Amino acid sequence: MAKKTTIYDIARELNITVSTVSRALNNISTISESTRNAVMETAKRLNYRPNKVASSLTSGKTYIIGVLLPSAQIQFFASVIHALEKYLKSFGYSILLYQTNESLESEKNGISTLLEAQVDGIIASMSLETQEVSHFLKVKEEGKPLIIFDRTHDDLQHTPTVKIDDEQAGYIVTKHLLDKGYKNIAYITTKHGIKIFKERYEGYLRALEEAKRPINQAYSLFGELTVEGGYEGTQTLLKLRDKPDAIIGGDDYVALGIIRALHENKITPPTVGVIGFANQNFSEHIIPSLSTIDQQAIKMGKECAKMFLKIIESNTADKNNIEPVILEPLLLARESTDR
Amino acid sequence: MAKKTTIYDIARELNITVSTVSRALNNISTISESTRNAVMETAKRLNYRPNKVASSLTSGKTYIIGVLLPSAQIQFFASVIHALEKYLKSFGYSILLYQTNESLESEKNGISTLLEAQVDGIIASMSLETQEVSHFLKVKEEGKPLIIFDRTHDDLQHTPTVKIDDEQAGYIVTKHLLDKGYKNIAYITTKHGIKIFKERYEGYLRALEEAKRPINQAYSLFGELTVEGGYEGTQTLLKLRDKPDAIIGGDDYVALGIIRALHENKITPPTVGVIGFANQNFSEHIIPSLSTIDQQAIKMGKECAKMFLKIIESNTADKNNIEPVILEPLLLARESTDR
Repeated sequence: MAKKTTIYDIARELNITVSTVSRALNNISTISESTRNAVMETAKRLNYRPNKVASSLTSGKTYIIGVLLPSAQIQFFASVIHALEKYLKSFGYSILLYQTNESLESEKNGISTLLEAQVDGIIASMSLETQEVSHFLKVKEEGKPLIIFDRTHDDLQHTPTVKIDDEQAGYIVTKHLLDKGYKNIAYITTKHGIKIFKERYEGYLRALEEAKRPINQAYSLFGELTVEGGYEGTQTLLKLRDKPDAIIGGDDYVALGIIRALHENKITPPTVGVIGFANQNFSEHIIPSLSTIDQQAIKMGKECAKMFLKIIESNTADKNNIEPVILEPLLLARESTDR
Repeated sequence: MAKKTTIYDIARELNITVSTVSRALNNISTISESTRNAVMETAKRLNYRPNKVASSLTSGKTYIIGVLLPSAQIQFFASVIHALEKYLKSFGYSILLYQTNESLESEKNGISTLLEAQVDGIIASMSLETQEVSHFLKVKEEGKPLIIFDRTHDDLQHTPTVKIDDEQAGYIVTKHLLDKGYKNIAYITTKHGIKIFKERYEGYLRALEEAKRPINQAYSLFGELTVEGGYEGTQTLLKLRDKPDAIIGGDDYVALGIIRALHENKITPPTVGVIGFANQNFSEHIIPSLSTIDQQAIKMGKECAKMFLKIIESNTADKNNIEPVILEPLLLARESTDR
């Protein structure tokens, strides 16, 4: 039996997107008359028959997916989105982004805005302000898929999720410094109660305990996750009687501030070891190059895309009982800890 | 006479967004029954009367604006968008982003996707691939405002535009190096024919001519606008018999590559002067800190927002004869050229 013609075949034949084919077949007005005619002729010629189950499921499908994220300016998120877009594009989907800028009010508005824009589903990562998540339920009420990535929330534990093992990330940066012979390891992180930052810090404590190193309270600083936070934290640490010989920055920007403060005290890494998180695109190229953690943004984007397709193509009722995907963080050891 | 009640007053009274009020008054389905009732009661209590002219103009308004851009991962664009969002939010608008990833096909799809999502208008910056711009005309055909920012195109010269004076940017970085006493100034830029990069290079030539410096062809390198492009270009320049004593990078990433290549040859700026463009958020913090150009991203975002509001609120037929806004680039002189 010959393979059934799909809208993908029509798209390939005409060298247009699946989204355009879908819009033409569904008679949506943004398609030009000539494109619609070409699609209709090709559908007829290739003997295209809409699948009844599929078309009842996909009726009104726009092939637009909404992505709600804190900020596309944060490189980690930008990389996740790029990978997600690349993967879903080949299946005919377009992505619209909504940035919350870490505001809960804006996050609520974003959910409404994306639903109003008739997206087929939403892939989201929580703002720093979000404590309560009932606004996310609106997506499910409209019968549309919701996937949460990276920044998750305990109240959404039955929602399909893609994340990284953050406790492990904190553990491996600390373990790396211990393996390099650093003994007094400080940690400059954020005062916010966000789960991922808490988990990284717990990984730091676990590595120290495992190595039977004493926990020095003066070595844990909770400030802002910024260059200035790293700079000021390091100034504080350098005034201690027992100065640390290595400093972990809560992210690569904090690490930049640490390096600047060390420089002003005539210290260059790896004399004092410095390591960050997130592998920003400058980190490999500064002098000395910065050791950090690869948070697997590209893989995370791809896994979100695959999970989305799996949900939207499944006919089962248990589409929300999908196993979470948890990615492993990767150590990038560079000059700043290479002593 | 008492001031007329507007939808802004209703929004303030109920502590909800203007967008929500508009949706409730227009009976759009994504609003909950209780919110709709609250809006209706408040509208009645405050004696709200829809302005007939305004409501014919705004009928079907979604208070969603589409922004089409090459990539939110490019920090300059991210900053423009943040400023734009911040400004338009106070007028009740939400922003949806579409990234073209420098692809013309994706740009065409983006215009369709945003129009299909029922945006009130589009604010756009061209992809590197875009030579022909007829797909932008679809926005005007639907009677919706279109604003072009930063990366413009000659065929859209009657479209409202916000940009920076790029020729001047190239001029002032070169002038700065000459003023610092550098004599042999090289320039590593992109081989692509994009207008803004061509104009910057023309500014470089103008500054050299004005200073009566000879133009040495070996000092102009056209490669990739990446760290690797800067690194390889510098390796080439250091093999010349007359080595340059200053190098301009086409952007701050190119400058990172230049600094790395100099470092491998035991040279640290400002011994050889290095300057970039775009003031990435690492540039101020690396050692030595990098001189560069502030492209006024925040001001550009704000000017786009103001222009959009001006167009959408104007009743005149000449809404496309709006004067372009051209911003001045600002020199940020730092350690890498401070000799």
